[in-house]
Amino acid sequence: MRSPAPCPPSARPSAAVDRSAVVRPAALRALFPALAEAAEVYLDSASTTQKPLPVLAAIDRYHRSRTANAGRGTYPWATGWTRELRRVRERTAAFLGADADEIVFTPGATAGLNAVALSWGLAALQDGDEILYSPRDHASAVYPWQQLQATLARFGRRLRLVPYRVTAHGEADTADILAKVTGRTRLIAVSHLHHVFGALTTLEELRGRLDPGILLCFDCSQSGGHIPLDVGELGADFAVLSAHKMFGATGTGVLYCRRRVHEQLTAFLPGGNSGVTGSDSGLLPAAMPERMEGGTPNIAGILALGAALEVLDDIGRAAVAEHNRVLTRQLIEGLRPLPGLELLPGPAHARCEAGYGIVSFTLAGIGATDLGFVLAELGFLVRTGAHCVPAHAGADDDSVRVSTHVYTSADDIDRFVRCVATLAAELAMTREVR
Amino acid sequence: MRSPAPCPPSARPSAAVDRSAVVRPAALRALFPALAEAAEVYLDSASTTQKPLPVLAAIDRYHRSRTANAGRGTYPWATGWTRELRRVRERTAAFLGADADEIVFTPGATAGLNAVALSWGLAALQDGDEILYSPRDHASAVYPWQQLQATLARFGRRLRLVPYRVTAHGEADTADILAKVTGRTRLIAVSHLHHVFGALTTLEELRGRLDPGILLCFDCSQSGGHIPLDVGELGADFAVLSAHKMFGATGTGVLYCRRRVHEQLTAFLPGGNSGVTGSDSGLLPAAMPERMEGGTPNIAGILALGAALEVLDDIGRAAVAEHNRVLTRQLIEGLRPLPGLELLPGPAHARCEAGYGIVSFTLAGIGATDLGFVLAELGFLVRTGAHCVPAHAGADDDSVRVSTHVYTSADDIDRFVRCVATLAAELAMTREVR
Repeated sequence: MRSPAPCPPSARPSAAVDRSAVVRPAALRALFPALAEAAEVYLDSASTTQKPLPVLAAIDRYHRSRTANAGRGTYPWATGWTRELRRVRERTAAFLGADADEIVFTPGATAGLNAVALSWGLAALQDGDEILYSPRDHASAVYPWQQLQATLARFGRRLRLVPYRVTAHGEADTADILAKVTGRTRLIAVSHLHHVFGALTTLEELRGRLDPGILLCFDCSQSGGHIPLDVGELGADFAVLSAHKMFGATGTGVLYCRRRVHEQLTAFLPGGNSGVTGSDSGLLPAAMPERMEGGTPNIAGILALGAALEVLDDIGRAAVAEHNRVLTRQLIEGLRPLPGLELLPGPAHARCEAGYGIVSFTLAGIGATDLGFVLAELGFLVRTGAHCVPAHAGADDDSVRVSTHVYTSADDIDRFVRCVATLAAELAMTREVR
Repeated sequence: MRSPAPCPPSARPSAAVDRSAVVRPAALRALFPALAEAAEVYLDSASTTQKPLPVLAAIDRYHRSRTANAGRGTYPWATGWTRELRRVRERTAAFLGADADEIVFTPGATAGLNAVALSWGLAALQDGDEILYSPRDHASAVYPWQQLQATLARFGRRLRLVPYRVTAHGEADTADILAKVTGRTRLIAVSHLHHVFGALTTLEELRGRLDPGILLCFDCSQSGGHIPLDVGELGADFAVLSAHKMFGATGTGVLYCRRRVHEQLTAFLPGGNSGVTGSDSGLLPAAMPERMEGGTPNIAGILALGAALEVLDDIGRAAVAEHNRVLTRQLIEGLRPLPGLELLPGPAHARCEAGYGIVSFTLAGIGATDLGFVLAELGFLVRTGAHCVPAHAGADDDSVRVSTHVYTSADDIDRFVRCVATLAAELAMTREVR
């Protein structure tokens, strides 16, 4: 086993938290109208991000002027939107280091992972094939494979779902993955940035050590819009993103399909404009990406994604990443010493001073759900519960997740940490009295 | 064969077109900002409708204030949206004469029909079962069955897709359906309102003459928001609607699943919040409608649908239907006498004075695509081409489709008819000269 990747320069241990790296929060906040008027501190960006004004404007513009379907009509109202959607596809491709025909717009990240299961898995898997996955990943990154397994079983085909472990740092355990790869392994499903642990998995340590025929499927729902992303660097065959978690609108996602897998893909939810040609013997494969995009697309949602990517590029993706890193370290250092507070696996337990905007914890003496209610009363909006980890994965039930983005300020985090510190001290006192 | 259903009172033959039934067009038009500023006449509502101000406001409100994910967080920003989505579900159920747990929100009508194919068809069909369908329906109502057939074939299961005919009136030929029903027929797929012919199919003539075990699947993409709809009256087991064709936003649809089919349904695109419980032996069925709604819903789109239904109810669905009926008759009577003009199957050829806002035609001497360009130059935005009818269905290629909605005025139709009349006369003259 090779040693894990070295810490990037910005994440070397014991670099004191340098708050100057936080991007102009006041000016930025003005971009997000829901925060401008709110007394609360929004710390649930991993569920959905706030929306910047250019995104609101893009959606409104589509509905307010020359509204028409795209990709169909030949009159200027329609062709104008067709052209704009093409530009968003090109921008998305550039954002990911991909080509435009590798970019599929989906109804969301969940649909994207199900598209991999249905359009690739159902068509390409043979009896006895294997998929490696983590049962501690988001339900959307687990259920599609389980559903695929059940569907194949109905037709007498076995699909083995081989679970791999997560390290104490919250990353995929690459040694465990390597140990579990067999000649039947067809795909490895990975959360690029874990939605509870906030830990990054790139599989970099496995570069060159896996059969190149094994496909890599990255769930980038949490990393998209948080850190620079390059599907080529990741070696991804599939990658999914969720637009609403990166300043965009709900109902829109991106599925990257590397060109080498195109010939293995059948149509996804085919319909009008999916480019599929019907024949008496079934459906003939159509060109990508239309093959995976039946029906009227979420036009407003795709335009919103285009505006969101523009905002992200304007701020600068490295600046966004550094902002979230600084706030994450501030959170970890503030929370770590509190009595009864336990930080879940993640950057808090890692050698690097890394951080990607997600920290989860429990507090002795109070359930996470109750703690969430108390925090909400005090004006801090965090996510609590099992965080969409499949029920039977067990261990991660019931924690508090704090997640940040560019509109989160160092002051927000200070206030949050002080609040949790007060609660932790009170709970500790109660324990001593008892 | 019983005689077809009698004409409704408003659609008795030779009732002269009474334009007084047109709903206050000027006041209504002000609701639709894209029309207020447009010089063009929008006649492509069957592709997508214009959006009324309350729909724009609902979307903007979600993005501008207390933005949060729904169905997950326990803090007030999140629970408020969860409650609002529940209200839209109840409103949608009431709109269709259904119960709330029978209403599934989908990414669109295409996804809805694919959900029937995947969640019902892939799980419930046995080798040799049959589905009746019309090859002249919209691709989204044909490809899902063809894709299902190809998927089943891969596993050695035969699904027979039995095509039925369309009458000269553009309706499903119920005599042909009845003749083709066998003991293996499991589902009959029908377009409630045909997207090119503008003809209504209710299967009323077959009431009580079909094995009650045969499921009826109605594509209501064109009827939703155009005529009063009651899934109970239709006897529908499945019905799909497209929100963006009824004043709502793209990326949102409705799939009605009658309670009696719930036990036959597997999860559709499962993921976070889909209520599915994973187990080592696959996925355990979860409650409806969550079973069919994995991942973050299109929150803005569902809120927009709620606003759209409110607008439709305010105008009155009977008034909308009568408005479109009057304009359709005006179109038919204006176009019918023009030289070289041929009206496609539809209400123009029927005994009743019916009409539902869609009229398609061809004009001798000019291809529909070219005619569409000319009309667009003259300010009339119509749809041309094959209208998403699967290529191999053939006959309906290349026509002009005119479609109306409440914001279309009698004057719009007058101007359009005059314009086509001028073109038809010129083309007729050219033919004579030759």
